[in-house]
Amino acid sequence: MERYVAGVDVGGTTIKMGLFTETERVALWEVKSPSRSEVEHLYEVIRDALYAKMDELAIPREALKAVGMGLPGPVSADGHIPWLVNLGLGASYPGKELETLMGIPCVAGNDANMAALGEAVYGAAKGAKSAVMVTLGTGVGGGIVVDGKIIAGFHGVGGELGHIVVNPDETAACNCGNRGCLEQYASATGIVRSARKLLREEKMPSVLTDDDSLTCKTVMEAAKAGDPVGLKALDIFGRYLGLMLSYVVLTIDPEKIIIGGGVSKAGDILVDAVNQYIDRYTHIAENRGEVILATLGNEAGTAGAAKIAWDACREAGEA
Amino acid sequence: MERYVAGVDVGGTTIKMGLFTETERVALWEVKSPSRSEVEHLYEVIRDALYAKMDELAIPREALKAVGMGLPGPVSADGHIPWLVNLGLGASYPGKELETLMGIPCVAGNDANMAALGEAVYGAAKGAKSAVMVTLGTGVGGGIVVDGKIIAGFHGVGGELGHIVVNPDETAACNCGNRGCLEQYASATGIVRSARKLLREEKMPSVLTDDDSLTCKTVMEAAKAGDPVGLKALDIFGRYLGLMLSYVVLTIDPEKIIIGGGVSKAGDILVDAVNQYIDRYTHIAENRGEVILATLGNEAGTAGAAKIAWDACREAGEA
Repeated sequence: MERYVAGVDVGGTTIKMGLFTETERVALWEVKSPSRSEVEHLYEVIRDALYAKMDELAIPREALKAVGMGLPGPVSADGHIPWLVNLGLGASYPGKELETLMGIPCVAGNDANMAALGEAVYGAAKGAKSAVMVTLGTGVGGGIVVDGKIIAGFHGVGGELGHIVVNPDETAACNCGNRGCLEQYASATGIVRSARKLLREEKMPSVLTDDDSLTCKTVMEAAKAGDPVGLKALDIFGRYLGLMLSYVVLTIDPEKIIIGGGVSKAGDILVDAVNQYIDRYTHIAENRGEVILATLGNEAGTAGAAKIAWDACREAGEA
Repeated sequence: MERYVAGVDVGGTTIKMGLFTETERVALWEVKSPSRSEVEHLYEVIRDALYAKMDELAIPREALKAVGMGLPGPVSADGHIPWLVNLGLGASYPGKELETLMGIPCVAGNDANMAALGEAVYGAAKGAKSAVMVTLGTGVGGGIVVDGKIIAGFHGVGGELGHIVVNPDETAACNCGNRGCLEQYASATGIVRSARKLLREEKMPSVLTDDDSLTCKTVMEAAKAGDPVGLKALDIFGRYLGLMLSYVVLTIDPEKIIIGGGVSKAGDILVDAVNQYIDRYTHIAENRGEVILATLGNEAGTAGAAKIAWDACREAGEA
């Protein structure tokens, strides 16, 4: 009988789900996340969605050997989560809860870590010994993969690259309450913030001047067209992301450095903006990891969750 | 027959050597490093010193199963080194060279990494899942250990914590040619530099004012006695080391953070100076690794080299 695992990516509004054999993905779909008032049913929602899809594909239930889950928050080495604000989920052991319900090995990890694992093992960095990924969206997430395993850290804050302080002199506050986090400069929100600040405080001439609804995309397009504010916002992005990545090079020294998330759609200009600063801040390194763009898009999280499911399977002696 | 490995710590002036069984160290001694003009004999010097000691202890040569070596420079994952300036050793594969000479598995790693491995596995962080060590001496070295293995990095610059840029605005140059490296503030030399700068530029009143031969030790003693310049130099040390360690917490998130090297003799005031800044810069982390002082001193490097020797042994199916 063919063996399957599921990779589940739990977000605040949707749950992305993938069903995999050892060689391919046989289904990718999504279901609505339970509302905060019904979050105690999260695990039933996941189980029911998996069984419904398996019935549809005529896959017997006993063929499902393990489930991996990505969750929007820190997950400690023993699988514990604190209160997860985006879901309304209380402090608990989500892997164990799903395992009790389904009777097969179930494991959980941080969602940015799962995306990094997916890209490292099946995507942009496939075949590499080690990779780091930064996910640039509304916020900035990160994940570190060495020999096909996530470095989640002893207390679950490994790979929290968005909250590394790159500018101790910053006066504005980050969402986390600190000041000067990478997220304030390299997220989509941060890039727009930089552009607005340049327009307001430095009165630089720009095609963006009369744009009341600035987005990361319009700022990046302006940069590509040679607009001074667009270029300067891109340079601020590159400087702080490059500084943070220089820390990654001089600690982990990964084979590949992956840029993913919505912002990465801007493409190669991001890679160029970052490379010059990484080089400047890693003077001692003769060689360092190549910066590349993510290739799996939204699917990275389910792919990474499937990877930890296969690992759990092997540990349980099932595959 | 009892099995042995050797742990060798190669420095510019001396080679420290240790001979170990699986449960204890049976000898610790040192020999003179070959001069630059005779560095091609390095491997014979090591072999001869090992055989001489084994003869002395009446240990048969076939009982020695592997040798681990720490070297003062980057060692890549496949065992390659570039030109090592402190030894005058050219680009090569030192492990393979010693292996050819001795006919048993021989492996090499960076010396700061070996010291970190020694402290993580046998010393201050014994029993911990993961540990990071910073070695504060004339320069600043580092090493990252996860599950008893060094993260040396794909290009050999993993754990180069002393050359992480903590102050991009610095105008003075580091030994590496860059500006603003941690080493400029947290090494023994860096601490003296900070104190001199405070005396010269800020004319702060201090017991150190008329001390022409300032050392790290006198600055630390002044800090312990409440002297303003001593306290401020200690604060600069704590701020930059704490900032760098905050990066380590948010990437690797180790269980323990070890401070070693000559500077660490100043003791608990260093731990206190660093802790407040790590907390400030890791706002998002509910918990993080405890900062502790190294316990093995000069022996850490040979202990770590013995650890990689045992690993090489096991890989070769010999233990």
